[in-house]
Amino acid sequence: MDDVLSRAAELGRHSDSPRNYTRTYLTPAHQAAARQIAAWMREAGMAVRVDALGSVVGRCEGPPGARTLLMGSHFDSVRDGGKYDGVLGILLPIAVVGELNRRGERPPVALEVAAFADEEGARFKTSFLASRAMLEGAASVRALLDRRDADGVTFADAMRAVGLDPDRLDEARIDPSKLCAYFELHIEQGPVLLGQGAALGVVTSIAGGSRHLVTVRGEAGHAGTVPMPMRRDAMAAAAEMVLAVEECAATDQLVGTVGMLEVKNGTGNVIAGEVGFTVDLRAPDDPRRRALEDRVFALFDAIAARRGVRVEKSRRHEVRAAPCAEWLQEQVAAAIASVGAEPVRLPSGAGHDAMIFAGVVDVGMMFVRCGAGGVSHNPAETVTAEDASLAARALLRFVRDFRAR
Amino acid sequence: MDDVLSRAAELGRHSDSPRNYTRTYLTPAHQAAARQIAAWMREAGMAVRVDALGSVVGRCEGPPGARTLLMGSHFDSVRDGGKYDGVLGILLPIAVVGELNRRGERPPVALEVAAFADEEGARFKTSFLASRAMLEGAASVRALLDRRDADGVTFADAMRAVGLDPDRLDEARIDPSKLCAYFELHIEQGPVLLGQGAALGVVTSIAGGSRHLVTVRGEAGHAGTVPMPMRRDAMAAAAEMVLAVEECAATDQLVGTVGMLEVKNGTGNVIAGEVGFTVDLRAPDDPRRRALEDRVFALFDAIAARRGVRVEKSRRHEVRAAPCAEWLQEQVAAAIASVGAEPVRLPSGAGHDAMIFAGVVDVGMMFVRCGAGGVSHNPAETVTAEDASLAARALLRFVRDFRAR
Repeated sequence: MDDVLSRAAELGRHSDSPRNYTRTYLTPAHQAAARQIAAWMREAGMAVRVDALGSVVGRCEGPPGARTLLMGSHFDSVRDGGKYDGVLGILLPIAVVGELNRRGERPPVALEVAAFADEEGARFKTSFLASRAMLEGAASVRALLDRRDADGVTFADAMRAVGLDPDRLDEARIDPSKLCAYFELHIEQGPVLLGQGAALGVVTSIAGGSRHLVTVRGEAGHAGTVPMPMRRDAMAAAAEMVLAVEECAATDQLVGTVGMLEVKNGTGNVIAGEVGFTVDLRAPDDPRRRALEDRVFALFDAIAARRGVRVEKSRRHEVRAAPCAEWLQEQVAAAIASVGAEPVRLPSGAGHDAMIFAGVVDVGMMFVRCGAGGVSHNPAETVTAEDASLAARALLRFVRDFRAR
Repeated sequence: MDDVLSRAAELGRHSDSPRNYTRTYLTPAHQAAARQIAAWMREAGMAVRVDALGSVVGRCEGPPGARTLLMGSHFDSVRDGGKYDGVLGILLPIAVVGELNRRGERPPVALEVAAFADEEGARFKTSFLASRAMLEGAASVRALLDRRDADGVTFADAMRAVGLDPDRLDEARIDPSKLCAYFELHIEQGPVLLGQGAALGVVTSIAGGSRHLVTVRGEAGHAGTVPMPMRRDAMAAAAEMVLAVEECAATDQLVGTVGMLEVKNGTGNVIAGEVGFTVDLRAPDDPRRRALEDRVFALFDAIAARRGVRVEKSRRHEVRAAPCAEWLQEQVAAAIASVGAEPVRLPSGAGHDAMIFAGVVDVGMMFVRCGAGGVSHNPAETVTAEDASLAARALLRFVRDFRAR
């Protein structure tokens, strides 16, 4: 099969910046990458189209009347990102289709490989834009057309500059009834497979999450003159809440993170009067996440009451969990096992285009081990040649053995 | 006796700002306040001199050959401060000397009232400048002469502008062997007397303190993809350390404060890789403070080791504790009791000019209850008329009954 890591390196040279790997929506580097992906798709024997948002879609026909297995991921990146994030889920399916073609095999269903033009949304602060447009058409995009990038260029003008027509957004829509499944292969972006010594994983669900902004108001005071029992220290209260988040998320595949914390007008010799912090809570399914929120906030209230401070929480962001279909999990696990690897099951803590498709079609995902401690969205992101080759063989098997339900 | 609160209000009108009470070293408002204080001293029957740093010192002779009881505090302020901080310890001694004079009584020792020109040091980022210069002369000041205020004016030029000579700093020196004691009356700047329903307090010591900058380095990561047991979260580790400070300082008149904390490059969906925070530790005496530091830092090390993060601590600031002399505590307590008040003993958590004098002469301090929850360095700072009057009577008694040791 094609050397996927060499192709990832080649694609990685198409960057908005000469200093690092950054490829944002509709820039010259982004368009060069799109052309390169289209060329590889054609080389693999696929018919290629570019949709109304700039996503590149290659098609390989199956038996007459068969529905389509759509395999996709994104080719935009975060700023100063890693070269495998998204790209691996485009290059491996192309390699597999190319291999089938070389063997003269017709796949059991029609295959499409979608290279989504915008998932990270670094340029216009969007998210899952290209996959959303495939399912929702103009409705999910129109309101964003006036947004400007950091240089003041509007989204609509950026489209026109590459020959896309902001008045024809609806043409991005596909007919989901023609899909039998959506499948996404992705680098794990975490350390679970690495920690378990496993190359490949079966994703059980894409975790849902919520983000909250919490404000704790106590009473400022002189660090020397207010005795400890008389304090209403917003920092100490917030510290207890940070540990409460950690404790509540300690089991059951939950995660809870306080990633940002600020003491308002903080100085070394003044007891903190006000502290603000973020709380990010995620769980493999929504009932578990809501139960986690309830536990965390009940503890916040108890801590605030005991310490005589006030606490306010406001929800800023919520994404529902997307479970992967059992029958797809089984086929992914069987494919992994068939190449001699252990099919470790794990939830995806990060979001993927698969979440968007989960609303209309059964979805499945395969993870590839992330090297360098599980670091992603970072130049240190790595995949070994062995793991890439194993993933290619497992994916080939998955596609050849695929049975739509 | 003179109405000290009216005088505090009158002095409060001499402010650098029309919007709030701010009186910094050598500004026109500061010089106007100095002239007003000198006038009140003369009115009380004192001989007045202005020293080389601009401090105003009034003298009332005692019996021939008697040493001097020096009573002092400062008349500069923090920005947007309270009108009693410092000022109360100048106006009350002036009122007491005036009262003795009106009664035709000669005090048992010579009395001096020192109105220190610069203690807060808001203009040139100095601290205890005027009292230091009295004891150390040019040595403690010369290195600061090139410092500039926010408008670019040097300390030396600011001196010249008001007729002081930066080449004659040594003339500020007094002969400490002529002092029998230093005494300072001050608003408490904390809530202890308020909490105990006591108007006046006997200060047992001025707490020593140290300030530390602590950096915790863990590992940044995706808030969704790194399972809780695999994290090395710098924020969670720091939170545990904040609570360790609080716990270690919970008894024994200790205080410990984390007033500033920052997550480096913190964002809501990233596990904190690095957190920096301040630790302010204070105790009534140095052995207890050092033991507190040792306990806190041992816990930091244990927390870091358990969580797999690194912790670095660097000391930024250290002030040794200044115990008040027992014999002065007893005379202050007797004076307070003589006016029917309870002589509550308490340490001073804030620093005062008395700390500087403690190096060369026995020092004593009396606190006056601070209203409004014990708030100071703030426009909300208050003293009631009753407390001011009680303090005046107690101070009169203290001076009349004073016996040098």
